[in-house]
Amino acid sequence: MEKTTVNVISKPKLKAPILIEGLPGMGYVGKLAAEHLLEELHAKKFAELCSPHFPHHVAVQANGTLKPLRNEFYWARTDGKDVVILVGDVQPVSPEGHYEVVESILDVIEQFNVKQLFTLGGYATGKYSKAKPRVVGVGDHALLKEFRKHGVTVEKGGGPIIGAAGLLLGLGRLRGMRGICLLGETHGMVVDHRAAQVVLEVLVGVLGIKIDMSALERRARETEHTLDRIRREMELRARKERRREEEEAWYIG
Amino acid sequence: MEKTTVNVISKPKLKAPILIEGLPGMGYVGKLAAEHLLEELHAKKFAELCSPHFPHHVAVQANGTLKPLRNEFYWARTDGKDVVILVGDVQPVSPEGHYEVVESILDVIEQFNVKQLFTLGGYATGKYSKAKPRVVGVGDHALLKEFRKHGVTVEKGGGPIIGAAGLLLGLGRLRGMRGICLLGETHGMVVDHRAAQVVLEVLVGVLGIKIDMSALERRARETEHTLDRIRREMELRARKERRREEEEAWYIG
Amino acid sequence: MEKTTVNVISKPKLKAPILIEGLPGMGYVGKLAAEHLLEELHAKKFAELCSPHFPHHVAVQANGTLKPLRNEFYWARTDGKDVVILVGDVQPVSPEGHYEVVESILDVIEQFNVKQLFTLGGYATGKYSKAKPRVVGVGDHALLKEFRKHGVTVEKGGGPIIGAAGLLLGLGRLRGMRGICLLGETHGMVVDHRAAQVVLEVLVGVLGIKIDMSALERRARETEHTLDRIRREMELRARKERRREEEEAWYIG
Amino acid sequence: MEKTTVNVISKPKLKAPILIEGLPGMGYVGKLAAEHLLEELHAKKFAELCSPHFPHHVAVQANGTLKPLRNEFYWARTDGKDVVILVGDVQPVSPEGHYEVVESILDVIEQFNVKQLFTLGGYATGKYSKAKPRVVGVGDHALLKEFRKHGVTVEKGGGPIIGAAGLLLGLGRLRGMRGICLLGETHGMVVDHRAAQVVLEVLVGVLGIKIDMSALERRARETEHTLDRIRREMELRARKERRREEEEAWYIG
Repeated sequence: MEKTTVNVISKPKLKAPILIEGLPGMGYVGKLAAEHLLEELHAKKFAELCSPHFPHHVAVQANGTLKPLRNEFYWARTDGKDVVILVGDVQPVSPEGHYEVVESILDVIEQFNVKQLFTLGGYATGKYSKAKPRVVGVGDHALLKEFRKHGVTVEKGGGPIIGAAGLLLGLGRLRGMRGICLLGETHGMVVDHRAAQVVLEVLVGVLGIKIDMSALERRARETEHTLDRIRREMELRARKERRREEEEAWYIG
Repeated sequence: MEKTTVNVISKPKLKAPILIEGLPGMGYVGKLAAEHLLEELHAKKFAELCSPHFPHHVAVQANGTLKPLRNEFYWARTDGKDVVILVGDVQPVSPEGHYEVVESILDVIEQFNVKQLFTLGGYATGKYSKAKPRVVGVGDHALLKEFRKHGVTVEKGGGPIIGAAGLLLGLGRLRGMRGICLLGETHGMVVDHRAAQVVLEVLVGVLGIKIDMSALERRARETEHTLDRIRREMELRARKERRREEEEAWYIG
Repeated sequence: MEKTTVNVISKPKLKAPILIEGLPGMGYVGKLAAEHLLEELHAKKFAELCSPHFPHHVAVQANGTLKPLRNEFYWARTDGKDVVILVGDVQPVSPEGHYEVVESILDVIEQFNVKQLFTLGGYATGKYSKAKPRVVGVGDHALLKEFRKHGVTVEKGGGPIIGAAGLLLGLGRLRGMRGICLLGETHGMVVDHRAAQVVLEVLVGVLGIKIDMSALERRARETEHTLDRIRREMELRARKERRREEEEAWYIG
Repeated sequence: MEKTTVNVISKPKLKAPILIEGLPGMGYVGKLAAEHLLEELHAKKFAELCSPHFPHHVAVQANGTLKPLRNEFYWARTDGKDVVILVGDVQPVSPEGHYEVVESILDVIEQFNVKQLFTLGGYATGKYSKAKPRVVGVGDHALLKEFRKHGVTVEKGGGPIIGAAGLLLGLGRLRGMRGICLLGETHGMVVDHRAAQVVLEVLVGVLGIKIDMSALERRARETEHTLDRIRREMELRARKERRREEEEAWYIG
């Protein structure tokens, strides 16, 4: 395997499908959202992608067997819509690898005449916020207008969109594909089902897809408990620190 | 996109044009100077360059849309001179990428019979100096003589010229192109319109191009205010530090 | 040498051989086990592999001569079984290099119709444990069952298997090869003949190969002495540290 | 320039020439020795090598002009011997680059039927020693015997030989070339003409080449003065430190 390789398992007949991408990234937000969607839609795998630009290891699964690292393409038909879902274990390790893999992904979906791309991810705030996470959108002007009606905040001149979520849109546009990137606010260092939930809710809302969200909601509540616990511990530590400083001030003063 | 790719939008008929390069670098000096020039000359874009050696992200623009990272070629005709201006969002991430992109740039400009190259950049001093920044020149012997008359300091045996500003001249010479690199003294960590102004003034002076500098002068004054503020804060901090040390010396002594 | 290159010295006629891999890694466990095996089986070298993805140096040997870095293929016939043993000085320096070299290795062994792979390595615990190291197995389900009978612990959902030990199994499966990775518990920063011994004992036990283990046992005892010494020094240091803390507490209290 | 490129300026007729390599490395020992040799032999440049694996900058020369980074091949005939000398500004930045450039070098010298290689370098000790630096040799067994008679210490099982000095010998052997690497003991962080002198003295002694060493000896004395000065300053600092510790001990005790 000198180059990124795609193994096509089957060739589903799809009618103007959209792509929904959720590869690993900040808070695993995109991956969690896309994986929930493909489970609820009973999506079927039709292609696998391997790359020498992936990390040089294999993953150990729950039953002790090994799993080579891959990106995987699934498809589903729901509410009259055809959907291609891209998920995976990893993203490439080098910039050059990112470009090669994204071009391979675009080669695959171009064959199915994909014209719209929705890439999902997280937006790191570094805060353990209690408030409902915002969903930030960047990308195609017309699509942004539509998503804004569903509560998406349009990000103006923020930081760059790194990895597949950004490159798919940038390089896809050169092939006539249009799309937007939806980013859920997340701490950044915590696996965040809550951010995944809000991102997915916005997406299915706009697309008019109906799915059961209960499993994701349950996990989102667990994420909330985790965040609560961390927040309380940090406040406790901060209070102790302040008291210690006051006592020291007393002695020194 | 396995390799650096150039998308030629139009083929202007140019008469012995010169190249002026201003890609991002130290203090953004070259980029600011070249972008001001292309705005004032109402230069037209005729080619775009993408590369898998660029960083693996896309930029978010002021209106929330995305912009793939590019280097861009513009052209203009002014005072009887044809000018090609090269600007862009980024430079490559690896040495190998730098060589590949610079060769692609040279391939483009060779078609237009470019024989003279002017690369613009900053020269980091690490100082928040109040004095007018010097413009340092390195490169072709005959050109340096000419620029010295316009106040350019010839740098003798200094540090290397890194990235496109240096490689364009080095690899260009192997194709019979001659040129110099003009570097404006700058702090290094501050976006510096002031250094951009002095570099551009020297360049248009030697080339005999007349442009309106007022917009750049205005921004240069803002840079000056920023530098003033940082300088004052640092002096204040240094004075406090000295006083604290004197007080401690009093107690200990 | 633009690509990984294999120099085939001879083409032994082998009957459904298995591959045993022991390249350098954690605690040198796999390398030590595989090298002991090839010495005891008087295995013969039949191919050498060089790669531009290896580190850019040459090794100095005990007699002052130089040795280019290589991976080496040996073969042996024992107890009616044909065995290919892969050992070497290094592994590649980049992920891309790992993929290229592992594919080259698979190209070689595929010619000999290898269907089973046994990759050997260490499993870092960071502890200077006195207990007999466990041997952990991951990989093919049916093989794991067999090895479990010989005392191998099946690892469920642990960390990834990095380098050739993992990639050979992952990429080999795409070519119809099945195998497992045996990892001996080891500190991680100490060359560990003891872990090599337990790994090799399990492997030859399952395969029904009989070899003299005395040389490896001798070196394993040396490793044990080294570990004992480090453990005692660390305990001594910890005790001193505790006493110092108690004394300080006395004064401060 | 996608690949390492050699520009052949002239094709000298050489009779079984030897190669002497001195590219930049530890203490610049090899480079200084080889450059002194080529000056004294009035060697002529016959080829230049550029590479996209070199650092992405150009050097500024004493007169303010720029110099693309290169490796350069010179030849000379002296005392009935034909010599090829390889010097240069840099070595590649990546392992893969090192392999590519060394193969290109071997391609060049193979055309001239080079059978013997002498690579020169430094051997870092981290000490500002006053004693005459030792010259350490590694490589071909027969050649080492000869050099040992001239005072070369044969290094047994030491650290690896990094970069061109090692790879030229390792990969050259695969082409039937034999040679040794001569390393002068040096501090490692100081440009060391003294180590260059001892390495060159040994080499010309064995080869039976007579050259004027006075210029190198002069610079070697300067290096010695530099080392003396650093040594004295470090001793002074160490003494001050000791005195301060004794005084503190007096007060605390």
